[in-house]
Amino acid sequence: MKKIVIFIFIALEVITTILWGCGNSGSTESSKLIQTPVPSRPDGQTDVIGLKCDPIPTVRVGFIGLGMRGKGAVNRLMAIEGTEIVALCDLEQYNLDDTQAYIEKQSRPKAAEYIGDEGWKQLCERDDIDLVYICTDWLTHTPMAVYAMEKGKHVAIEVPAATNIDECWQLINTAEKTRKHCMMLENCCYDKFELATLNMAQQGVFGEIVHVEGAYIHDLRSLNFNPRRSSGESYQPGVGSETNKKPGLIGYWNHWRKNYNIEHTGNPYPTHGLGPVCQILNIHRGDKMNYLVSVSSNQFGMTEYAKERFGKESPEAKQTYKLGDMNTTIIKTQKGKTIMIQHDVTSPRPYSRIHMVSGTKGFAQKYPIRQIALEPNGHHALGKEAMDSVLTKYEHPFYKEAGEQAAKLGAIAHGGMDYIMDYRLVYCLRNGLPLDQDVYDAAEWSCIVELSEKSVLNNGAPVEIPDFTRGAWDKLQELKFAE
Amino acid sequence: MKKIVIFIFIALEVITTILWGCGNSGSTESSKLIQTPVPSRPDGQTDVIGLKCDPIPTVRVGFIGLGMRGKGAVNRLMAIEGTEIVALCDLEQYNLDDTQAYIEKQSRPKAAEYIGDEGWKQLCERDDIDLVYICTDWLTHTPMAVYAMEKGKHVAIEVPAATNIDECWQLINTAEKTRKHCMMLENCCYDKFELATLNMAQQGVFGEIVHVEGAYIHDLRSLNFNPRRSSGESYQPGVGSETNKKPGLIGYWNHWRKNYNIEHTGNPYPTHGLGPVCQILNIHRGDKMNYLVSVSSNQFGMTEYAKERFGKESPEAKQTYKLGDMNTTIIKTQKGKTIMIQHDVTSPRPYSRIHMVSGTKGFAQKYPIRQIALEPNGHHALGKEAMDSVLTKYEHPFYKEAGEQAAKLGAIAHGGMDYIMDYRLVYCLRNGLPLDQDVYDAAEWSCIVELSEKSVLNNGAPVEIPDFTRGAWDKLQELKFAE
Repeated sequence: MKKIVIFIFIALEVITTILWGCGNSGSTESSKLIQTPVPSRPDGQTDVIGLKCDPIPTVRVGFIGLGMRGKGAVNRLMAIEGTEIVALCDLEQYNLDDTQAYIEKQSRPKAAEYIGDEGWKQLCERDDIDLVYICTDWLTHTPMAVYAMEKGKHVAIEVPAATNIDECWQLINTAEKTRKHCMMLENCCYDKFELATLNMAQQGVFGEIVHVEGAYIHDLRSLNFNPRRSSGESYQPGVGSETNKKPGLIGYWNHWRKNYNIEHTGNPYPTHGLGPVCQILNIHRGDKMNYLVSVSSNQFGMTEYAKERFGKESPEAKQTYKLGDMNTTIIKTQKGKTIMIQHDVTSPRPYSRIHMVSGTKGFAQKYPIRQIALEPNGHHALGKEAMDSVLTKYEHPFYKEAGEQAAKLGAIAHGGMDYIMDYRLVYCLRNGLPLDQDVYDAAEWSCIVELSEKSVLNNGAPVEIPDFTRGAWDKLQELKFAE
Repeated sequence: MKKIVIFIFIALEVITTILWGCGNSGSTESSKLIQTPVPSRPDGQTDVIGLKCDPIPTVRVGFIGLGMRGKGAVNRLMAIEGTEIVALCDLEQYNLDDTQAYIEKQSRPKAAEYIGDEGWKQLCERDDIDLVYICTDWLTHTPMAVYAMEKGKHVAIEVPAATNIDECWQLINTAEKTRKHCMMLENCCYDKFELATLNMAQQGVFGEIVHVEGAYIHDLRSLNFNPRRSSGESYQPGVGSETNKKPGLIGYWNHWRKNYNIEHTGNPYPTHGLGPVCQILNIHRGDKMNYLVSVSSNQFGMTEYAKERFGKESPEAKQTYKLGDMNTTIIKTQKGKTIMIQHDVTSPRPYSRIHMVSGTKGFAQKYPIRQIALEPNGHHALGKEAMDSVLTKYEHPFYKEAGEQAAKLGAIAHGGMDYIMDYRLVYCLRNGLPLDQDVYDAAEWSCIVELSEKSVLNNGAPVEIPDFTRGAWDKLQELKFAE
């Protein structure tokens, strides 16, 4: 009898807990959220908000990954004063050869070379490198960054810095322990228009910012299926760009992007859209992201494309791809702002990162067309001339400083933003200043990869976004770039 | 002892049900959803899909509500062959007078007049009316439509047809019982661009449609706060449009829109964006909406606007408004498509309904700029000339039939769409054909009002969208307009 009573008691407790956790009514902040636990900070560690390190007069750089993004990075870093290209690592000799040729062209000394599966570790272990610059596929970003920091190096990592929450914490814990910089290379934060809108936001032109949007909408179907030819393979006409006949440049290494699409859904590539708008919202500088909901369409695009390109009976057409074509994610912040982020890389659509900012005094949007609208005529977008004049007025100081040099570099500067990004990274390292993007930015912008997938797999159920600063999100009250 | 065992059994049943309903893991279609029960169909009733009624050679119309939308409707109906304007109802004599003047101008016989709180009922009770056309504030749409159908009339109702799920079922049950047409006047379904994209979708130009978007983004802050002057009040300079000096035309009757903003959040006005894209997705004609998630920003715009216009200490500035400025809702359909719908009427932004269609073969978007992109060059939007040529090729038959007449009517046709809508309504009634929009469309597009609010109040938790057809959603396999 006693046992039965205890059992009933436990049963009622369970019911209460469950009802509390996901009741059909109520509107408390915690109701309905799928929780994302925050591991406690390792003993003796403190946060790295505003981290300053010793100035490095000449920044000695080692590069890992010289494929789609790495070669351009080497070229850009060479265009910046106070850098030394110390070492290069890739899995393909022709990438090393190409890059050495660029270095030679700049009359710089030849860099040390690393190749093979363990090459990147050997590069990290050198004692004459200050910064490891990582441009590999996204699954390797965190392990390499963690190892490099452990070996006493600052790290710059391509996007996303991490592909799951565990990796986010690895980056943070390692950065906090080693007191090294860990910057995700979110280049879109340095786009001219994005920076102008950040400047406008910081000067109050938009009033109180209410809602922002970003996206990565980029038809990558062809790239997803293209083979990445190694140096031994011959060029296949009709596959990839006809003009791009060098080996290794037309597809992703080992089909890493396609393979990720096979295994995962959600938004695997959120940072290009999210980075610039999080800066505008001062995320972990007075506001923080609290939860997200995320819904994906089913997958149609990859299969249909594969059928046409490879035939209905091809393995590519018969493959199951988990990644839904269109993912839409909505994020709510502590201060009641909303962020809408989209991802679609498998539909025939014009490229878009949206980049939209809507406040109580004004509005700006970049894609599909640049628009700015300001009170008292917020209902109407400014004409081209008036808009250009606003954009000139609010041109970001970074472009005033370095825009001309960026323009000179042409394609490798990627419309300017990639150069400005590297220019700022080197500037801050040389002057012992906090970097523009810290390890918490990297974690916050990357964590959407796992959390959006979790929401999608639960019919869009809200998922808590953890406070990666572990309580320090309002220590600063605004994003300020060090000068 | 027996009672205790029964109790345990019930307790376990409850636990199982709750776990099944909202477990933290798993990805079945039902997990995590806030359920929306479907009441059983009253005995003896059947659905009204494809409902045909006796042809009505001359459609005799009674109008309720002659304010912002009603007068234009009377004017349009008079421009269509086979209509009689039998009766008018409003709460203000000057609206009746104005409308009678329009009728006189067309040399039509004077209409019967109804005024006062019970006027609309008396109008519905007449035995010489076929169609009651309702242009009142949204809270009165359903009660009036239900009463009119009960009195044997077909009804056309302004948007949204209903403001909650209970009203949706009232409309459906009454339409099924009375076998009368109940059409929501979703005029945006008749916009030229929207209809062209519907035509393109139906002809397969977009391939399999994957994702669509719609919105109602319209800065209504001024209208929300403007008084609706009655005939006794004098004109207040600086309030509303200077050119609009007639009484009763500058604000909403009794501030109904502002009052709704005070009491509710979510998306109270989803149908302009949702209607056209639901038609493109063949909702309840082979596909159906399964669930939604909805997140709103906090409210900033109304308060800030009120402070500037009325002063910081004004009642308007001190009022609490529940409606968040920006609401974003994502809907998932049975066939795995996604719909993104937004609402913002309190921010300084250019007008937008988005109207975006993305499929495996092509893409179209209306706001902020018209874009069409088609395979094999889906990555790039067509140039203006090519786009215009596509739009001409796929001009919808309705515009070929009646576009010229619509253009002649100018402003009251609202860019053509309002005229085409009424033209189609009258055409179908006169010929005994099913209407283009049925009562299930009205319910589906309107139910977002309550369901989005429920989701917002539960941190964006997914909410089930009921099958208003009660099992008949795939009886038809495509939307086909009757000819």
